[in-house]
Amino acid sequence: MSDTVKYLLDESRIPKHWYNIVADLPTPPPAVLHPGTLEPVGPGDLAPLFPMSLIMQEVATEREIEIPEPVRDVYKQWRVTPMYRARRLEKALDTPARIYYKYEGVSPAGSHKPNTAVAQAFYNKEEGVKRLATETGAGQWGSSLAFAGGVFGLEVQVFMVRVSYNQKPYRRALMESWGASCVASPSDQTAAGRAILAKRPDHPGSLGIAISEAVEVAAQRDDTKYALGSVLNHVLLHQTVIGLEALEQFELANDYPDVVVGCTGGGSNFAGTAFPFIGRNLREGKKTRIVAVEPAACPSITRGTYAYDFGDTAHLTPLTKMHTLGSTFTPPGFHAGGLRYHGMAPLVSHCARLGLMEATAYHQLSCFEAGLTFAKAEGIMPAPEANHAVKGAIVEALKCKEEGTSRAILFNLCGHGHFDMQAYIDYTAGKLVDQDYDEGELAMALSGLPSVPE
Amino acid sequence: MSDTVKYLLDESRIPKHWYNIVADLPTPPPAVLHPGTLEPVGPGDLAPLFPMSLIMQEVATEREIEIPEPVRDVYKQWRVTPMYRARRLEKALDTPARIYYKYEGVSPAGSHKPNTAVAQAFYNKEEGVKRLATETGAGQWGSSLAFAGGVFGLEVQVFMVRVSYNQKPYRRALMESWGASCVASPSDQTAAGRAILAKRPDHPGSLGIAISEAVEVAAQRDDTKYALGSVLNHVLLHQTVIGLEALEQFELANDYPDVVVGCTGGGSNFAGTAFPFIGRNLREGKKTRIVAVEPAACPSITRGTYAYDFGDTAHLTPLTKMHTLGSTFTPPGFHAGGLRYHGMAPLVSHCARLGLMEATAYHQLSCFEAGLTFAKAEGIMPAPEANHAVKGAIVEALKCKEEGTSRAILFNLCGHGHFDMQAYIDYTAGKLVDQDYDEGELAMALSGLPSVPE
Repeated sequence: MSDTVKYLLDESRIPKHWYNIVADLPTPPPAVLHPGTLEPVGPGDLAPLFPMSLIMQEVATEREIEIPEPVRDVYKQWRVTPMYRARRLEKALDTPARIYYKYEGVSPAGSHKPNTAVAQAFYNKEEGVKRLATETGAGQWGSSLAFAGGVFGLEVQVFMVRVSYNQKPYRRALMESWGASCVASPSDQTAAGRAILAKRPDHPGSLGIAISEAVEVAAQRDDTKYALGSVLNHVLLHQTVIGLEALEQFELANDYPDVVVGCTGGGSNFAGTAFPFIGRNLREGKKTRIVAVEPAACPSITRGTYAYDFGDTAHLTPLTKMHTLGSTFTPPGFHAGGLRYHGMAPLVSHCARLGLMEATAYHQLSCFEAGLTFAKAEGIMPAPEANHAVKGAIVEALKCKEEGTSRAILFNLCGHGHFDMQAYIDYTAGKLVDQDYDEGELAMALSGLPSVPE
Repeated sequence: MSDTVKYLLDESRIPKHWYNIVADLPTPPPAVLHPGTLEPVGPGDLAPLFPMSLIMQEVATEREIEIPEPVRDVYKQWRVTPMYRARRLEKALDTPARIYYKYEGVSPAGSHKPNTAVAQAFYNKEEGVKRLATETGAGQWGSSLAFAGGVFGLEVQVFMVRVSYNQKPYRRALMESWGASCVASPSDQTAAGRAILAKRPDHPGSLGIAISEAVEVAAQRDDTKYALGSVLNHVLLHQTVIGLEALEQFELANDYPDVVVGCTGGGSNFAGTAFPFIGRNLREGKKTRIVAVEPAACPSITRGTYAYDFGDTAHLTPLTKMHTLGSTFTPPGFHAGGLRYHGMAPLVSHCARLGLMEATAYHQLSCFEAGLTFAKAEGIMPAPEANHAVKGAIVEALKCKEEGTSRAILFNLCGHGHFDMQAYIDYTAGKLVDQDYDEGELAMALSGLPSVPE
């Protein structure tokens, strides 16, 4: 039997619609609230930050939302992304499980992030926006928006979490090569950044802080809008091309997943992979288990509270109900920069609340170990974020081995690790450790949650 | 009209045969000579270094050589590689040219090198070899052989040119992640390495020296063979999948290249792309211009002598007739480590001699400039080696603009630059310079060519 099994679809099979899970949920997600009035926000409240077409997607309830042709056209450069059967990994694990993975690292920026970056850049361009401001952690999102801005002729300003800015000069160079400007956050370019630097000049930054800075810039400049790489409904929506393609690829494989595994930071690659399968569970009575894997050092679903909270540190964003560790929570250092966010996408949180999915958390050392096992077998170096999904899939595959059962497992390998080799060098040299978050800090962060009457 | 034009073929269209240009050449290439006797070498002379199946490919004269199914099976992971029409680059250059590029960076190692690494690992495994020794410059070849060795269960030992070993720890980590061992060359593990270190302990290394070390190890150990990433006939043969696929993709495009451009170090990615088109020129009277682009600091075709020379510095290899700068030539520092070889593949040299192709040389600054123009337009960061092909293609496209003519230009984007971002950072910071080779050193190296009667 062939060792390499790749399920290819030609570009005519790039989905023509994104999938909106809201249409299939038994109860609608809680309203987004204005932080001052605590009343549900209307489209007008978000207009300073986003173009109207994205705001309408944020509140959309129809199941299918058309993908504009110019967006599909850019997708064509790397989509349909391959889905592989991981036969060499199955052999290495000696498991009866059938392991499949969707590989999003084939995009120009090397991750799933361009799926939404391209869409966001397109809609902003359509509405006459000249400039986008955004934040980035490890740089996957910033580089993706830089790429998309370049394609559509938009200026892009990226606030990059300082610790990543220093650790990952190559992702910064990638953004700059594509024409974006990139500053370390907290920066002196915003009031939010200056306030934090005044208290702690060497602050390592966080996604929450970087979001505050980007939102502030967008709110203050007429020609500038804000772009977010995860968390929001429209971002998750754009990522559903991953799961929709996988559904078609499983038809080619004449198989269907018993388990779908994704790593979760803000939740978008997970949702993009899993939501189309949750939709099948809900509409067709399929029984696919949906497993979110989060870092044990920043475990918003498994250890956070489900409550209204701010998306950022400076409290400039609306309030959304989500699994959160508190907007002031700063996780200990670990290498999956893209998973260091205090909250979980409201739609993913809602699905977790409804019992439509499970969540589990692993420490980084076991994730790196899993990633190297995968790399040796399959020949692709995963990003540290993606290692969490690999770990989750391996755990499921080893369960199959224990039970002597063959189940089909799908995971999303959301990005390659070409810009993360230092993390592998440090791991191999024994320099990485597993750090838990501080329980006292978590309690403190949670005690600061905004008070919202039921 | 669509901006993204990708010519896809499904995996059933991966070539079933490699193309051997020797069958179509008007005169056969000169014999390979034993360095002691100056008599043509026989298969037995090469047996300590290579498995017999590769030796037979080295001297094969039939036009088509079957690709074993296990090799095609591994190719399936990333092949057929995409061929793109570079419309956004055409717009950026405002040229009437039709620019196409084949993209080999989608392989696990990020370049064209796995095309031959996988084949070589397979044939060695078939003949019971346990261990492969090889050299690598920038690390593209070493990482590719590490990947292929992992797939087929062979140990791989890589001698990495010291300057690259120090400059590119991430490629080294990639090799090690795939299970290979990697040492800086010159090393103390071989007599050749120790002899050079004795004269100059801080020697930066060269491909010629690293080849000597790997050949020495292979010659001395029964379980170990040698693998070369370029130059040899069988390596060029394996790379012809690139051009063969492109021929089919041009049928999809309903077009045919007027010019084919490739960068040349040892010559394998160039030959892999160009030879199938040279074959069409020879067999069918097509008039495609074939252009090799080499670095001005190491210009073996444009400035070297066509003569018998050694492939390595320690003079352990047979003598081949090729364009050479002399086996002791050390080029000045420049960033395209994969193009720093003193000789040119004998088959490419022979084609140049027969007037079947042209060659031109550019300095690195203009190549980086071209690479960034390409990256901004097309969204892919090229390897510094590939920038030479980009530069050559842009020169041809701008000629079209000057002349007001539309010609079809194909170039091979042989690898991505994800592990070369420091070079881009240095270029952007103005830290790179154009260095010419030393004329005195070239004269000295050429004066040391072995004396072989006509």
